[in-house]
Formats: sequence, structure tokens, C-alpha cells
Amino acid sequence: MIFVRFEQHGEPQYGIVDRHHITPISPNPFGTYETEDDPIPLAGVRLLAPVHPGKIIAVGVNYKAHAQEMGRELPPEPLFFMKPPSAVIGSQDAIQYPAMSSQVDHEAELALVIGKTAKNVSKDHALDYVLGYTCCNDVTARDLQRKDSQWIRAKGFDTFCPIGPWIVTDLDPSKLTIECYLNGHLKQKGNTSDMIFNVPHLVSYISQIMTLEPGDVITTGTPPGIGPMQPGDMVDVSIEGIGVLRNTVVKSS
Amino acid sequence: MIFVRFEQHGEPQYGIVDRHHITPISPNPFGTYETEDDPIPLAGVRLLAPVHPGKIIAVGVNYKAHAQEMGRELPPEPLFFMKPPSAVIGSQDAIQYPAMSSQVDHEAELALVIGKTAKNVSKDHALDYVLGYTCCNDVTARDLQRKDSQWIRAKGFDTFCPIGPWIVTDLDPSKLTIECYLNGHLKQKGNTSDMIFNVPHLVSYISQIMTLEPGDVITTGTPPGIGPMQPGDMVDVSIEGIGVLRNTVVKSS
Repeated sequence: MIFVRFEQHGEPQYGIVDRHHITPISPNPFGTYETEDDPIPLAGVRLLAPVHPGKIIAVGVNYKAHAQEMGRELPPEPLFFMKPPSAVIGSQDAIQYPAMSSQVDHEAELALVIGKTAKNVSKDHALDYVLGYTCCNDVTARDLQRKDSQWIRAKGFDTFCPIGPWIVTDLDPSKLTIECYLNGHLKQKGNTSDMIFNVPHLVSYISQIMTLEPGDVITTGTPPGIGPMQPGDMVDVSIEGIGVLRNTVVKSS
Repeated sequence: MIFVRFEQHGEPQYGIVDRHHITPISPNPFGTYETEDDPIPLAGVRLLAPVHPGKIIAVGVNYKAHAQEMGRELPPEPLFFMKPPSAVIGSQDAIQYPAMSSQVDHEAELALVIGKTAKNVSKDHALDYVLGYTCCNDVTARDLQRKDSQWIRAKGFDTFCPIGPWIVTDLDPSKLTIECYLNGHLKQKGNTSDMIFNVPHLVSYISQIMTLEPGDVITTGTPPGIGPMQPGDMVDVSIEGIGVLRNTVVKSS
């Protein structure tokens, strides 16, 4: 099943995508919902970020080859940080290049959306708490990341968390190809099978520390090939079985 | 004015405190609201955290004397990190001491609650975007903070963000005494006039990076005297003009 969030009559609305149509649902995919009205054509609809997360937990250095390109040691336990919900944009929205930075990188990542409240869940049951998967670009002001001890500024500017285009359920996250294209050129390529800590491990581990709530997003780290973007660039995150998250880069207004 | 959030008929409800009574308001203090019903007695009411924040930005190393006790250099720009909304508890709620840590410290702090959407605001106008002030205990697993490059785990456990007991408006944040008492003994004492970056500076600076939204919380750093708490302890954060945030510490279940 594919859940989308889209704009209808100026308001956010959840729906289910079926080929060329969206069937609106109410209230949302995080529990029992009802299907509403008649399906509407997908064409012409403005998709929003597929969820407005309560919190975003981002995992760093979760692929060996990316750890190598960053000159970082492999973390003994999952290394994570947060991105603010105010950074979220959807597919087709613009990433704003902030004046405070002079190196803004793409980081293509598999993101998961929590479906049910999760606290102290085991690895064996972790996937039961996941609603589905989407693409994420963990946009990073690399110069500020190098400068700051804490990464929130580098990772937290408005528009630095594109997610989308939708949430795909019933997907096995253990072996998916992830790619990132800049202006159509392949820049990043990896496979989720190369994660140091896999999805069940991450959900279980984070749930030992904090309660994960429906709609929370965990983004699972980037494979190698990160690099800078410039205003005017078009960046695509493509994940097998999900689709393509496309954003353009513009100078911050 | 003093805004509280409290439990009524099992639901969170905002209100205004006037000596011994609460006048319920609807929908909330972040905009136009209506006063509802008759005032109810404050006695016997269960106060909740005065806001359920969309995001919590926590400023670190913002008092010279605390930088010294931590052996840290003074930051050239505000140093900040995030705490997850899932960590929030109110006054009288219990701080759960997690099994993963063996040193959990108190950090008494002045917190402010954003009242209006703020993006790129100047220092001169920053206070116009603040609804009011409350007490915060930026509870920290110090052993994990030393171990991890990013502080989210150390600062992000459930119950690690007590705030309350209420939000006080019309308060000048520039010269307030902050104290922390552990089992009645004074442990921390400072004054907001000793902040390295004052409240207008922090609001303005953070708003250059991310949009601050109504209900967001910024906690402004702790004065010297931090130290460990143990299960069974009672910890009070007392701030001049606001009141006392009181929590007990219990072993995590």
C-alpha cells in the first residue's frame, strides 16, 4: 500500500495511491481510517511531505564506506542526532541554500515512519512498529558540521529534511538499492544490506531510550558518494521499491 | 499572566491561574482564546507540562562558570542541541533513572516558550515572539554525554525534560535568580544576567537557522553547580518570578 499526504482545498489530506488515483482517507494512516469520497486523479495534485513528524531521529555513520569517506571510526553503538520538524519539505519543494553555509551536501537515505507507539521493543518485533518507508535527503551544511560539536545547526536549517514522495508499506528494508542523482548524474549508490545497524536494530535501540510515536521518522544513514549541491541543482533520491524524491536547490530568500 | 496546562476530565486543558483558581481557556494561549466556564479551584488539580512543544532547542555552555566546571571553552556562537518532545514531563512527575546510565545530573535552566512564528527576527524584536517563561531541568546522563559525540542519547531519555510549573508572561528575563535544590539543599545558583548569550540573542540566532513555531521551547543553559541525582531524590528548580518545578527521581521501570 502507498500512503500519500497531499493538498486538498488548501488543507493537508492523507490518501492511498492506486496507479493514477488517490483515494482520500480519514483521519490518517496511523490507526483505523475510513476511505472518503471518490478517488481523485493523481495528476495535478500537490504532494506534501508524507508525514508531519513529531520528531526526526537521524542515524549517522551507518555505512562502512561512508565512514571511510568521512574519515570516521565505525560507531560501536548507533550514532544518532535530531533534525527539527521545521526542516521537513516534500518532494518537488525547494531546498534553500542558507547564507550561513558555503558547502551544502546531499545525503540520500532510507527513512522509516513509525506506525505505533514503541518503547523498549525487541529487534524481533521492531518492524511491527513501522508503518512504512520513504526516501529522505539528510541535507547537511558540511562546513558547519565540521565547525560545530553538535550537528543541529548543520542539519537543521529550514528545508534540510526533504522526505517523500510517499510511504510504502509491506516493503522488506533489508536489501534495497539507494541512489542519489545530481542533475541526472549518479553520485551516491549503496544498498541497505550494507548498513552497520539494520532497521530492526535501530528501532529497537532508539526505543530503549525514547518513546517512538506514530508519525515519528527515523532516517537510517547515507551510503558513500556525498557531495555538494549548488543553487539551481536538481537532486533525486531514488530507493528501490519506493520511488524518487526530487528537489531543486535555491538560494535562501 | 500565568498560563497553566492541566488535566480536566482526562484531557489536557489550558487555563489562567489567578491566586487559588484556574480559569479554563480555549483553545490555547497561542493566539486569540476565550475564557470558559467558571473558575475551578487550583487545589487538587493535576498540572501538566505547560506546553507540549513541537521542538525543544537546548542551549549548552551558556554560563561562564558552568563552562569552567565542565572544562569547556566558551563558544564563539550559541551552542545548541535538541531534546525530543517525548522527554517532556510536568512538575510533580517522576524523572526515570535509565538502566543505561550510572550518572544522571540535574541542570536547572530558564526556558522560554515561543508565542508566534519567528524566522529571521532581530535581537531588538526577539522578545515579541516569546509568550513567556518557565523552569526547566535539562536532565543529562553525564556518562553518556562524555561517551557520545552527539548528546541526544544523554539528553533525550523519556522524562529527561521536566518543564513547569507554568508559563509566566510579562517577565524580564535579563536578571533572574536561578536555583536548584536537591533534597532541600542548594546545589546550583546563578543569575540570567551571567548568560554568555542572552534571551534576545538566542531567539534571534536560532530563528536565522530554523523557523520557531508557537509552543516551541528554548532552554537557555545552566549555571554552575550541576551534580548527580539518585533514585529517591527530590529536585527543585526555582526561578525568580516564575516558581518551583519539583520532580522526584525513580528507577526506570
